[in-house]
Amino acid sequence: MRVALLGCGVVGSEVARLLTRDASELARRVGAPLELAGIAVRRPGRERDLDLPAELFTTDAHALVAREDIDLVIEVIGGIEPARELIVTALENGASVVTANKALLAEDGGELFAAAAKAERDLAFEAAVAGAIPIVRPLVESLAGDTVHRVLGIVNGTTNFILDAMTTHGSGFEEVLEEAQRLGYAEADPTADIEGFDAASKAAILASLAFHSRVTIGDVHREGIVEVTAADVRSAAEMGCVVKLLAICERIDGPDGAAVSARVHPAMIPLDHPLASVRGAFNAVFVESESAGQLMFYGPGAGGAPTASAVLGDVVSVARNRLKGVWGPGESTHAQLEVLEIGRATTRYHVQIDVDDRAGVLAAVAAAFAEYDVSIKTVRQEGHGSDAQLVIVTHEAADADLAAVVAGLRDLDMVRDVSSVMRVEGML
Amino acid sequence: MRVALLGCGVVGSEVARLLTRDASELARRVGAPLELAGIAVRRPGRERDLDLPAELFTTDAHALVAREDIDLVIEVIGGIEPARELIVTALENGASVVTANKALLAEDGGELFAAAAKAERDLAFEAAVAGAIPIVRPLVESLAGDTVHRVLGIVNGTTNFILDAMTTHGSGFEEVLEEAQRLGYAEADPTADIEGFDAASKAAILASLAFHSRVTIGDVHREGIVEVTAADVRSAAEMGCVVKLLAICERIDGPDGAAVSARVHPAMIPLDHPLASVRGAFNAVFVESESAGQLMFYGPGAGGAPTASAVLGDVVSVARNRLKGVWGPGESTHAQLEVLEIGRATTRYHVQIDVDDRAGVLAAVAAAFAEYDVSIKTVRQEGHGSDAQLVIVTHEAADADLAAVVAGLRDLDMVRDVSSVMRVEGML
Repeated sequence: MRVALLGCGVVGSEVARLLTRDASELARRVGAPLELAGIAVRRPGRERDLDLPAELFTTDAHALVAREDIDLVIEVIGGIEPARELIVTALENGASVVTANKALLAEDGGELFAAAAKAERDLAFEAAVAGAIPIVRPLVESLAGDTVHRVLGIVNGTTNFILDAMTTHGSGFEEVLEEAQRLGYAEADPTADIEGFDAASKAAILASLAFHSRVTIGDVHREGIVEVTAADVRSAAEMGCVVKLLAICERIDGPDGAAVSARVHPAMIPLDHPLASVRGAFNAVFVESESAGQLMFYGPGAGGAPTASAVLGDVVSVARNRLKGVWGPGESTHAQLEVLEIGRATTRYHVQIDVDDRAGVLAAVAAAFAEYDVSIKTVRQEGHGSDAQLVIVTHEAADADLAAVVAGLRDLDMVRDVSSVMRVEGML
Repeated sequence: MRVALLGCGVVGSEVARLLTRDASELARRVGAPLELAGIAVRRPGRERDLDLPAELFTTDAHALVAREDIDLVIEVIGGIEPARELIVTALENGASVVTANKALLAEDGGELFAAAAKAERDLAFEAAVAGAIPIVRPLVESLAGDTVHRVLGIVNGTTNFILDAMTTHGSGFEEVLEEAQRLGYAEADPTADIEGFDAASKAAILASLAFHSRVTIGDVHREGIVEVTAADVRSAAEMGCVVKLLAICERIDGPDGAAVSARVHPAMIPLDHPLASVRGAFNAVFVESESAGQLMFYGPGAGGAPTASAVLGDVVSVARNRLKGVWGPGESTHAQLEVLEIGRATTRYHVQIDVDDRAGVLAAVAAAFAEYDVSIKTVRQEGHGSDAQLVIVTHEAADADLAAVVAGLRDLDMVRDVSSVMRVEGML
C-alpha cells in the first residue's frame, strides 16, 4: 500500500515519523505494509527532524498525486487551494484520501464527497474535527441507529484557553490573548480562532454528520469571543455559569418540519454541565441523542501528535477497506434538512441592564420583554442610585425575538445601557 | 436484510421498537431495508409494549438462528449458554452477529471470534462495554494508528451510583446499597456488580482491544466495593480524592518485555481527574495513548434505550458491510502480550495506620516500608493518645511489595490496626 503525504509541517512530519517508526506494527494492524512513497513540501531544504531519504521529498504535489502507483493520499496542507484540486485529482486517479482539512470540507465538502463517490474511494477526515478526539466515526457509525438532537462542542482550543484564563484570573480579553500568543496557544494572526471561523468550519461538518444533511460554513451563524469582557465572565460566575465558545448544531422545528440550526457564539453554560470543566486548550463534544442520551467526547483538539493519531487511525481504516476492495459509508445527506437562520434558533438570554433607580423601571423593562412574548425566568436587582442594574435571564425563545427585546430595551428612557447580553446554553 | 432478535427484555424490546419505528430512516442509512424476521423469547405470552405480529415471536431460538434466510442475528439474551451456542450457530450458518454480551465475550471471546473469522462474518459488540458510549469502535478504528498505554474506566453504573452516594451523604455501603436497590439502580442480587464481576468482564474486553492481545476474565484481578467503608471515603476526601471502582488496563514492563496488567478494584483518584466528576450511574472511559494523549468517553453505561442505541449502531455497520460482501477487522491478537498477575502491577497505596502514640513509632513504620523498597510520598500524623494515626501515601511500587509492607505493618507491636488500605490511581 503506497502512501503519498501532502504537507510536512507540524502534523505531516509527525505522520511521516510514525508511519516509518511503527511500520511493522501498522502492517500487522492493516494486513499489508504501508510504504511512504513521497512527501510533497513547499520548502525541500527546510530542516526536519526526520530520518528519511531526500528523494522522498518533492515540491511537485501535483506530480505526486498523479503517480499511478499511489494508493492512499494524506492531505495535511490545509487551506482551500491547492488542497481541493489535489484531493480531487487523487480521487480521480483512484487513490483513497485522508484529510485533516476542516476549512475545505466546510466550504467544498459536497464537491469532494461527490468526487469520492464517483471514484468509489474513501475520503476520511476524523482529524478535521476536534483533533485526536474520535467524533466523526462515532457520529457516522456508532450513532447510525440513533436520532441526534443536538451537538454542543468546545472545538477550538485557542478560544477555550483564552476564556479559561479570563475566568481563572479575571483578566480582560486583550491581555489574555497576548499571553496566549506568547505561550504558543494563539497564532500571530489569531483571526480564524478568535472570530470563530475555525469553530464554524467544525460546526458545519458536525451538523452535516449529525443530521444527514449538507451544511456548509456559509450556513453557520458565527460570533467570536472578541467582545467577551471580564464583566461578562464575572456575571456568568455570579449565576453559577462559565463562558465558553460553543459550536451548536441542533435539530429544531422549522416552518416545513424538522430543520437544522448551526451556530458558533460565546455562551454561558452552567458549572454542572460536563462541558463547563473542559480546561485550557482541550476540546470536548457533547452529543444529545434520543436513545443514547448524553454522551461526551473529550481530549486534545489540536497539536501535531494528537492530529497525527487521528490521521493514522483513518489511514489504517482506509487501507483495510482498500485491501477488501470496498469504501466506507461516504457522505450521508438523504435527510436534506433545511438550515434555518439564527433568528429561528431558540435559546435563553442573560441580559444585564444599567437602569435609573426609580419606581416603574422594572415594569417598563418587563413590558419590553412581553412585547415579543419573551418570558422572564429570573430578575435580580443589584446596586443602587447610579449603579442600579437589572440582571435578567429569560426562558427559551426565538433568537430574533430576544434580539428585538434587547433593541427595545436600548430605546427605553430609564435604561442607561444594556451592558451585557449573552446566550445561555446547556441548562437542564 | 433479514434480522433475527434473540431476547426481548429491556434492551431487546427497545431494539425491536426502534427497528420497526425507524425502518425507513434505517433503510436509507444502510442502503437496504432491515426486516425484523423473528424474535426468540422465553415467555411468548408476556405483556410487551410492542405493536408486532404474534407470529414473529418464537420460543425456539435454535430454530430461528438455523433459518437460512436470516442475514443478521442480534443477541441480547446475556449469560454464557445458550447465547454462546446460538452465536456460533448463527455465524456457521452465514449470519452476521451483533451482541451486547460482555460476560460471554470476556469468557469465550476467542472461540466466538474464531467462529466469525472462519465464517468470514462480522461479530460486533459495541454495546458490551459501557452501554451507549462508543468505546469499542474508537479503540479498534480511531486509535488503530496509535499506541495505547492505559485505559481507566468507570464501567459499572451500580457501583458508581453507590460510591457517589456514599461520598455525597457520608453513608455506609449497606445503607446505600439498599437505597440503590429500592431505586432500581442495583439488582435484587447485586453480586455481579458489587463484587466487580461485571467490571472485570469489561476490563478483559477493553484490555484485549487496547493491547491487541487476548485477555479473558480469568486474567483480570478483581476486588469489589463491599469492603469500602464510610471512613475510606472520608480519608479520600481529606487528601483531595474520591473513591471509584476502576477497571484498569495498562501496558507495563514485564520480565520478557511489554506486558499487560488488567484489574478491577476500588481506588482513590484525585478530584481534578476527569473521571472524578462522573456522577451517579454514568460511565466513562479514560484512555491514555502515545500520540492522542488523554481522551475521555462519557455517557450512560446501561439501560434499555442507551444499550439499544449501541446495538443499532452495530446493526447499521454490519448491514453496510454485508451489502458490500465484506466484514470488519475482527479480533486483533497479533501482539500477544503476556498478562501479568496483580503483584507485578505498579500503583500507589494510601494506608491509614492506628498506632501507639509514642517515640519511635514513625521510625518503625518507615522501616517496614523500606524493607520492601517502597518509597513514602507523604506522611501525616493525626490525633493523639489512643486516637493516634499515621496516614501514608506511597510513591509507585509493585503491588506485591506494597501488599508485603501492609502485612509487615500488621505485625508491628506499635501498630494497633491498619484501618484502611486503598490504591491511588490517576495521579498526574
